[in-house]
Amino acid sequence: MTMTATDDLVRFVTNLSFDELPSAVVETTQNLMLDWLGSGIAGRHLHPTPCFGRVVEGIAPGEGACDILTGASRRSSFAASMINAAAGNIVEQNDLHNASILHPGAVVFPVVLALAQERGLSGRDTIVAAVAGYEAGIRVGECLGASHYRCWHTTATVGTLAAAMAAGRAMRLDHRSMLHALGSAGTQASGLWAFIHDDADSRPLHAAKAASNGLLAAALAQQGVTGASDILLGRQGMGEAMSDCIDADRLVDGLGRRWGVLETSLKYHASCRHTHPGADAFVSLCKDERLAMEDIVGVSVGVHRGALDVLNPSVAPETISEAKFSMGCVLGLLAHYGSAGVEAFTLDTIRNPRVRDFAKRVTMAFDPEVDAAYPRKWVGKVVVTTRDRRTIERRLDHPKGDPQNPLSEEERLAKFRCLADAGGLREVEAVDRLIDWTQTLSQRDRVGSLMQWLA
Amino acid sequence: MTMTATDDLVRFVTNLSFDELPSAVVETTQNLMLDWLGSGIAGRHLHPTPCFGRVVEGIAPGEGACDILTGASRRSSFAASMINAAAGNIVEQNDLHNASILHPGAVVFPVVLALAQERGLSGRDTIVAAVAGYEAGIRVGECLGASHYRCWHTTATVGTLAAAMAAGRAMRLDHRSMLHALGSAGTQASGLWAFIHDDADSRPLHAAKAASNGLLAAALAQQGVTGASDILLGRQGMGEAMSDCIDADRLVDGLGRRWGVLETSLKYHASCRHTHPGADAFVSLCKDERLAMEDIVGVSVGVHRGALDVLNPSVAPETISEAKFSMGCVLGLLAHYGSAGVEAFTLDTIRNPRVRDFAKRVTMAFDPEVDAAYPRKWVGKVVVTTRDRRTIERRLDHPKGDPQNPLSEEERLAKFRCLADAGGLREVEAVDRLIDWTQTLSQRDRVGSLMQWLA
Repeated sequence: MTMTATDDLVRFVTNLSFDELPSAVVETTQNLMLDWLGSGIAGRHLHPTPCFGRVVEGIAPGEGACDILTGASRRSSFAASMINAAAGNIVEQNDLHNASILHPGAVVFPVVLALAQERGLSGRDTIVAAVAGYEAGIRVGECLGASHYRCWHTTATVGTLAAAMAAGRAMRLDHRSMLHALGSAGTQASGLWAFIHDDADSRPLHAAKAASNGLLAAALAQQGVTGASDILLGRQGMGEAMSDCIDADRLVDGLGRRWGVLETSLKYHASCRHTHPGADAFVSLCKDERLAMEDIVGVSVGVHRGALDVLNPSVAPETISEAKFSMGCVLGLLAHYGSAGVEAFTLDTIRNPRVRDFAKRVTMAFDPEVDAAYPRKWVGKVVVTTRDRRTIERRLDHPKGDPQNPLSEEERLAKFRCLADAGGLREVEAVDRLIDWTQTLSQRDRVGSLMQWLA
Repeated sequence: MTMTATDDLVRFVTNLSFDELPSAVVETTQNLMLDWLGSGIAGRHLHPTPCFGRVVEGIAPGEGACDILTGASRRSSFAASMINAAAGNIVEQNDLHNASILHPGAVVFPVVLALAQERGLSGRDTIVAAVAGYEAGIRVGECLGASHYRCWHTTATVGTLAAAMAAGRAMRLDHRSMLHALGSAGTQASGLWAFIHDDADSRPLHAAKAASNGLLAAALAQQGVTGASDILLGRQGMGEAMSDCIDADRLVDGLGRRWGVLETSLKYHASCRHTHPGADAFVSLCKDERLAMEDIVGVSVGVHRGALDVLNPSVAPETISEAKFSMGCVLGLLAHYGSAGVEAFTLDTIRNPRVRDFAKRVTMAFDPEVDAAYPRKWVGKVVVTTRDRRTIERRLDHPKGDPQNPLSEEERLAKFRCLADAGGLREVEAVDRLIDWTQTLSQRDRVGSLMQWLA
């Protein structure tokens, strides 16, 4: 087997040890887990999570050792990772790594939590498995680049490989088996953006399959099933089939020095991340200029190509998921309610005539400068036209939640409480225990079950 | 929802009824099921099937109503379809539809058998579900074309959609749900040829995942999970992402008049189908010219592009799976043993010095005429150079097993017995009962279990 960048990346995550993780990486990983847990709880009773629950009941009928976030039962790691990943991808507030255009937490944590519970892992081993998933997935996403994202939902495709590396580490696979797991994960990688034009339910399906297929890839490798030795850069591999701008160097960029975990953004708004740069530039401009909704006659948002590919052109969305992908609606909610958090998206709010009326004043335009910086930087640019005929521009380099413009601890915890509330988890004690559980994860001998606080 | 070719195809398979199936279609479907069953039994104990068995035990614990071909247990339809599809893809003797470059039986029958058992289907409904899978899958494969096959293993990708349509029919989904199932299947479609360069185990994984993901897509649709309305022709769908030569008209070509089932080839040799045209032209030439192995100093096989992409350049394969993708080895086995059936591939035969020595005399060359006809016709062309310095050419339009050059009933049954024997099923009575079961399927009120004959 020749040494390739793929092999180097796999070797790095195979050999990663807790002791070499900077304390900021450990702490941030715990925070990212809490963030994911919030999204999972928020989506646990929402369509289509219960559909996934019923299907999994049929395909994998036995009990297991892994929590389902509804708190209703414990299942196999495969079943739990599938249902919990679906649940975590509904309210659109998952963490995002800019340069890889990947929601790593959405696919890594469902697998890591399930396997940690099934195998009785310590908190330290659980954190290492999660970091392995993040570092590998982020570099694979950067390697495949923005052209991959054109048709492919990176969280679905690359997410499968991230989940496999996290699962493989949780299973303590050796280097050779990790490489097989990566091969078997890559040849299962799928997930197209086609669903977005129909507001179909494939986003949670993508996360559910990335998580469970990644876990499957690692389990197969553990049992001796081999995979392609270089599924990324090899002939007829992912690079050749799924990207026009593959960059092999990104696979090994700064391994052990640069931590993707620390570059991961937390989403402040509960909408597609492509709406955030424009939304934050808009909010900042309105605040500084003291503009109210009725002062504004037009907003033009300068966006990168990926936003045009994925965002919904609709200014009058009929469903909450459509609304989360509508720049007009998101700006309308912010203008009218001052928030685009999870609680701001209801059928009443998105159909509010004032929000709809405002949404009609919002347009998106391709902006070459924004596009050139993307995906490394998600630049926000807006031009607002006021009733008194002024034209005001605003440019913002880092949307809120980027590491350069982070949520405060207070905002992070408030976000979690808000998400938990949205998922019907209202007992303060239980919410506090979940927060405490993630914040002290590295000190736990066993991850254990969360069921007593989830029900 | 606008009417598209995709929609028309889905409507056709949704409304398909047993009474409109020509009797030849019914009979051929039964024969194809027997053919698949043979491949499944032959591979049931071979690596990596037992690995899949152990993994499925972990991820989908719990008993079910569906036979595992090992005869060891009964599992959920998801688990059974996964294990049985893996088993059916190891000895490389699955049926193939030329124009779609798809092994339909490999992905359709594992799903149909499992769901028929789980839901107590009649033989007639079982046959309709299988035909739905074949007709849909074959047309999707033709639509995506040969450029899709360049990097993508069509049986893996398109197979997922074929399995979903078969599963959806077995579940009696309505038209709308069938369309959702197709969308959820297409966004799970994956499977790259990268593994072939490492002789890795992804071929059975591809079939296992196509079958079980297709079943999952239908189960999700039944529970109300929606999918893209046109995953094939729509924006950011399979056509845009995975083909350079998409042909929408093929999706609806001859629906109800032209039956893909009747166009499906049975493989005579237990090697990659891309070796068959050359192999049969070679055999035919040697027979007519009365050439023995030692009379031949060189064989040049004219091949299409797909063969060069997928076949192994090795003339000294070390594993059986490598040998099945080596033109040199296949011709060597035919020259030395007079057979390339399942029994002809052992570690001893493929390493036989005479076979290896002959394999070194075999080369492949791209042939524009062969390539132009492909994939509709798989033309075989060989040029043999003899010891006495003659150059003899042979061209063959239809490799053995094509509908235009079919296996006789005797050959079909002999193939099944041979495959059953390879899988350790040697009791004549049990083999006869399995043959009888498939040949009388359309008359059965319930498909029932095969366990008593499989053990």
